[in-house]
Amino acid sequence: MNATAGTAGIARLATQTADFDQRLNALLDWEGVSDHAVQARVDDILSSVKARGDAAVIEATNRFDRLSATSMQELTLTPARLEQAFNGLPDEQREALAAAAERIRRYHEHQKPASWQYTEADGTVLGQQVAPLDRAGIYVPGGKAAYPSSVLMNAIPAHVAGVSEIVMVVPTPDGVLNELVLAAAHLAGVDHVFTLGGAQAVAALAYGTETVPRVDKIVGPGNIYVATAKRAVFGQVGIDMIAGPSEILVVADGGTDPDWLAMDLFSQAEHDEDAQAILVSWDEAVLDAVEASIERLLPTLERRDIIRASLSARGALIHCENEQEAVAIINRIAPEHLELSVADPQRWLPDVRHAGAIFMGRYTAEALGDYCAGPNHVLPTSGTARFSSPLGVYDFQKRSSLIQCSPEGAAALGEVASILARGESLTAHARSAEYRLKR
Amino acid sequence: MNATAGTAGIARLATQTADFDQRLNALLDWEGVSDHAVQARVDDILSSVKARGDAAVIEATNRFDRLSATSMQELTLTPARLEQAFNGLPDEQREALAAAAERIRRYHEHQKPASWQYTEADGTVLGQQVAPLDRAGIYVPGGKAAYPSSVLMNAIPAHVAGVSEIVMVVPTPDGVLNELVLAAAHLAGVDHVFTLGGAQAVAALAYGTETVPRVDKIVGPGNIYVATAKRAVFGQVGIDMIAGPSEILVVADGGTDPDWLAMDLFSQAEHDEDAQAILVSWDEAVLDAVEASIERLLPTLERRDIIRASLSARGALIHCENEQEAVAIINRIAPEHLELSVADPQRWLPDVRHAGAIFMGRYTAEALGDYCAGPNHVLPTSGTARFSSPLGVYDFQKRSSLIQCSPEGAAALGEVASILARGESLTAHARSAEYRLKR
Repeated sequence: MNATAGTAGIARLATQTADFDQRLNALLDWEGVSDHAVQARVDDILSSVKARGDAAVIEATNRFDRLSATSMQELTLTPARLEQAFNGLPDEQREALAAAAERIRRYHEHQKPASWQYTEADGTVLGQQVAPLDRAGIYVPGGKAAYPSSVLMNAIPAHVAGVSEIVMVVPTPDGVLNELVLAAAHLAGVDHVFTLGGAQAVAALAYGTETVPRVDKIVGPGNIYVATAKRAVFGQVGIDMIAGPSEILVVADGGTDPDWLAMDLFSQAEHDEDAQAILVSWDEAVLDAVEASIERLLPTLERRDIIRASLSARGALIHCENEQEAVAIINRIAPEHLELSVADPQRWLPDVRHAGAIFMGRYTAEALGDYCAGPNHVLPTSGTARFSSPLGVYDFQKRSSLIQCSPEGAAALGEVASILARGESLTAHARSAEYRLKR
Repeated sequence: MNATAGTAGIARLATQTADFDQRLNALLDWEGVSDHAVQARVDDILSSVKARGDAAVIEATNRFDRLSATSMQELTLTPARLEQAFNGLPDEQREALAAAAERIRRYHEHQKPASWQYTEADGTVLGQQVAPLDRAGIYVPGGKAAYPSSVLMNAIPAHVAGVSEIVMVVPTPDGVLNELVLAAAHLAGVDHVFTLGGAQAVAALAYGTETVPRVDKIVGPGNIYVATAKRAVFGQVGIDMIAGPSEILVVADGGTDPDWLAMDLFSQAEHDEDAQAILVSWDEAVLDAVEASIERLLPTLERRDIIRASLSARGALIHCENEQEAVAIINRIAPEHLELSVADPQRWLPDVRHAGAIFMGRYTAEALGDYCAGPNHVLPTSGTARFSSPLGVYDFQKRSSLIQCSPEGAAALGEVASILARGESLTAHARSAEYRLKR
């Protein structure tokens, strides 16, 4: 993979080489498949929590997070504790968090769909009623990837949707609490926080226990146990997408400072070793310049080891022939984050069929969107932007169809329904419709 | 369960009895769980189709549908064949199908969300771009439950969404084709039809084969093998809800002919033995009258054996104290179909938090909605209306967030992002934002 790699080890690909498709496919290949051992362990945890509730949750938590809790009370954080965390933050952090929350809220207000109805000529009314979920569960990872921004991004859309109860779970391995995460929960209007993680937390949310209220939908990223558990309870409750590693595709026309582009790639790569950062340009000189910036800047970064691992395993600088090829690569990858670091990004929009979030122009660093621009940072990964959307208010609402037939409408529709029902040999359907014909 | 049951064997429950909650829970209990044997067989089929494509699909199809195909060509229906099926229908059926398709299309046009953008004071643009999926896969069951109406209900929303390619699979056990199903596929704008079913069809759609194009989302109901396969490929492709047995909850105030109500319950129960039909009233006389109608009408029905089995195993007539209790039962059950056979159903709407489709008033038989009123008949079952919606245009579209920061916007946001990123120890994020501060 790293034929032309420098010390950062980032691969150089070119669309004109014979093995381009093969190399790109290899680079993108990712399957977060849980093996049978993980599956079996998760099944065990799910069924024990379903059968024994709190007791099973406490046992699993003590075991996996190395705690010695004796009651669920010890695994519950009160609203007062969350507020204390918020008030205890340095002013600068508290204000930044509040500013981000306000912008996220404002953006998501634009996503609220309205209920609608229309009346036909014969008086029949059709429509759709939109209602919030009663309860949402938010999984927040603990340990090294505990991100307060994720609390805001998951809880605020639920709040804007009108969800009446938001339940958050966050593991505290070895008892370590993240004050910023708690502060974010306070700010985002989370109603309950339990210090649980793993499959046991998913089970508690999906089935409910004596202490943990059963929710209607579980959102938020987690490790392979969490992902496997979410897949298993899907149907009992709703779930969001099962997240893979985070990724960015940057398209550059040469007008952006190569240091900026290198840092944008780093900001993706620093998440973890599996994260993916790819740069595409039709100008070989741009790739050379960014590669030079990468080499020069990498040693200055705190998370350089993670970044180096990520760039050498999954990163790439791709040379394409022209803008059309860049568009084809965008739609082939369906990136979670797409940065259009070009002169007129709006011109590109109609051609971008698949992307989680599109960062347009030289000033729109992905990092701005990760924290505070307003749009959600929970985005479809690993090409799932082909069929799924950023987390949004719509994830915390559902719709009911509305049908109210006038007597005239029922008579007209009854004729059609009767013929089709008989065509399907469903004669009780037919007769139910036919009753409404006789007046 | 059938303490007070007549020959139809439908249970009578009353909210005022001590064991009401327990009896209702037992009645509603449904878990379409696939056991380990099913899981293992499905896993085998999925991995063989993934590895060997068409050859594995043909083998599985020959085996499970008792065919002897030697090529995928024999398992492919041409557009000409679909058109021939449509033209070959009796006039009455062809016209009824076309009328239903037209109404379904018109209703779903109301569901199209638009892309939106807004510009902030400092010139920063935020928004969301809505785009259709490239390819949708529609699973249509074969055999006894082959419903042309389901073809319309699954394919038309995809068409309205702007999906460019709609791929349909329908098994033909023993080679039996349903002409109405093919005609509906023609009418609904299906692009490809393959006569495949089971886990092998799901695998072909999810992974693609030499012949079957890989789709972005798979929708449509199926048996336990299909449901298990859909759950397994979720993430590779999108899927709709995993459907349980169909159900209706009818609320009656006494103003509707009891024969009509009995037939509405029958129309649900005739689907299959697991289907569920429940009637609720605060007027004991209404329950008595409907029970009498059930007893009198049941013997006249073609599908009386299925109906009797369904009503005695899963049906109920529930006496509640008042409208408030009826509302509580609605929200407890979160029914797939809710029939409000009452004087002023619109008055009830604000209190109905969970229901797939709401049929309002005495003239709105569920059967009208099943075929031709316009709203979709693919609805959340088994209480999943708590968190999911009728199949709709929105299921065949996805969104991309749009962010375009002005230099001033990037400077303001960069301050906030930098503080929060450093709080998360993501310093490359911080530096990427900080670059946009310097001008």
